[in-house]
Amino acid sequence: MPKERLFQLLREITEERIPFNQLIGIKIETLDLDSLGIRFEMRSELIGNFMRGNLHGGVISSVLDVTGGMVAWTGIMKKMEGQSFEEIAQRFAKIGTIDLRVDYLRPGLGNYFIATGTILRSGNKVSVTRMELHNDSNTLIAVGTGSYLVG
Amino acid sequence: MPKERLFQLLREITEERIPFNQLIGIKIETLDLDSLGIRFEMRSELIGNFMRGNLHGGVISSVLDVTGGMVAWTGIMKKMEGQSFEEIAQRFAKIGTIDLRVDYLRPGLGNYFIATGTILRSGNKVSVTRMELHNDSNTLIAVGTGSYLVG
Amino acid sequence: MPKERLFQLLREITEERIPFNQLIGIKIETLDLDSLGIRFEMRSELIGNFMRGNLHGGVISSVLDVTGGMVAWTGIMKKMEGQSFEEIAQRFAKIGTIDLRVDYLRPGLGNYFIATGTILRSGNKVSVTRMELHNDSNTLIAVGTGSYLVG
Amino acid sequence: MPKERLFQLLREITEERIPFNQLIGIKIETLDLDSLGIRFEMRSELIGNFMRGNLHGGVISSVLDVTGGMVAWTGIMKKMEGQSFEEIAQRFAKIGTIDLRVDYLRPGLGNYFIATGTILRSGNKVSVTRMELHNDSNTLIAVGTGSYLVG
Repeated sequence: MPKERLFQLLREITEERIPFNQLIGIKIETLDLDSLGIRFEMRSELIGNFMRGNLHGGVISSVLDVTGGMVAWTGIMKKMEGQSFEEIAQRFAKIGTIDLRVDYLRPGLGNYFIATGTILRSGNKVSVTRMELHNDSNTLIAVGTGSYLVG
Repeated sequence: MPKERLFQLLREITEERIPFNQLIGIKIETLDLDSLGIRFEMRSELIGNFMRGNLHGGVISSVLDVTGGMVAWTGIMKKMEGQSFEEIAQRFAKIGTIDLRVDYLRPGLGNYFIATGTILRSGNKVSVTRMELHNDSNTLIAVGTGSYLVG
Repeated sequence: MPKERLFQLLREITEERIPFNQLIGIKIETLDLDSLGIRFEMRSELIGNFMRGNLHGGVISSVLDVTGGMVAWTGIMKKMEGQSFEEIAQRFAKIGTIDLRVDYLRPGLGNYFIATGTILRSGNKVSVTRMELHNDSNTLIAVGTGSYLVG
Repeated sequence: MPKERLFQLLREITEERIPFNQLIGIKIETLDLDSLGIRFEMRSELIGNFMRGNLHGGVISSVLDVTGGMVAWTGIMKKMEGQSFEEIAQRFAKIGTIDLRVDYLRPGLGNYFIATGTILRSGNKVSVTRMELHNDSNTLIAVGTGSYLVG
């Protein structure tokens, strides 16, 4: 089934073929046309403030950017239903972040973190997404908004 | 001299005591009251797109955030001249990013990269900074704007 | 009742004592501790593109900024319960926008528009809010995120 | 000369055919391929805080958005040199703001204000610009960054 193959491909690329994602330890928990959940564990390498032990702001912005890009991608997939695996995969390779805003709301403390996202606009050229990062106590740590070039 | 000790402390903390900065390989090239230059080398771990070999967006946002925070800190230092090392160091520990915007202008390709920043507003509570990332050919790769809580 | 007097004061200031709000025609439809709805009618003076007849981007950013500021204010009010009218009113006068991001999702077409907002973080110094603008067909026209200095 | 005609057209549209620009009182002081200066006078209708008498945040975001859009447009014009008036004018009609960030640095006080802008990236689909607003004492009041859909 093409849709399953595409999700599998996206999962593999995101987790295994993007070196910086591996450094952070990004794992995709949920991935289908309507929802996305990205998880990563707290590790000492990800710390930004050695006195408080919280996540580096750059870890947060990195994960929110990856999340927004994947949400933008599922928006494209919905529009391309029926098209070939190759056409969709090719389109995916072209997605790029135009800009990103991150709001750091609370210290990034926790055992693990979950990033989710929703699409606000899925255009032919530009998609806009909102992202959120919660910790394992469901505290909202940060939010983001991103614009992505998709075509 | 207190000012030299403060710059030395800031350099040490930024390069050696923030694990995620070490993962990226951040080195401070220039640091005084009026200018700041942060350098990092391209390494395979920092790649975001394995086909193009360019920097991960998260590396860029991480470095721009660190740059903005340090520029905000030099703004505080200017205002606190004459105060004790302890007072200034204590103030430094409280700096936190409120929010950050990053604009990805061109693919992050190069042998090394230099981030610089300028302060737009140095307030008692909030400072605002603009940041830029160039590669070793002096191509502008990305810019950012950040708001920092400083008091 | 102080709370009612405060809401009445905020409504009056927003609608009648801020000249640029009057120029846009801002009316507060709902205002209590947990929800806020701001309405304005389409008028030819608010047009940005004379060929398409849609709202000027500046009208949208203006209304989203006002909305975020009011949401930040209700967050303060919740924290100040029991304090005097004067103390709360004085605090209100100090609220200022630090920065604002606006995402223009769809053309601003409609007979009237409703802006709403939610608070993401209500701090002692800084509050962060998300805002949305819908038209009378409930189409999402634009969203925003704002940081406000509140203390 | 087509270039002069285009500049004249852009000036007329911006000043006379966009109702909300007229409400603000936008005047184009400088406009050529390499520089742009937009001016507007302080008037009581543009006030946001009746106690301090400063500009409404929405006036500032409106003017910065117009400025960014015009800078994006001059970027297109540079690329389209030699093409017909009609082709360029048609391209102009399609420019739209994707998103905008505004940083409010100092109270908007003064007799008149000047907005300027520079282009950071002039793409086939998306352009990115930075904008600044100064008052008549050359105090920096606000800055902005905008992404524009240009093709």
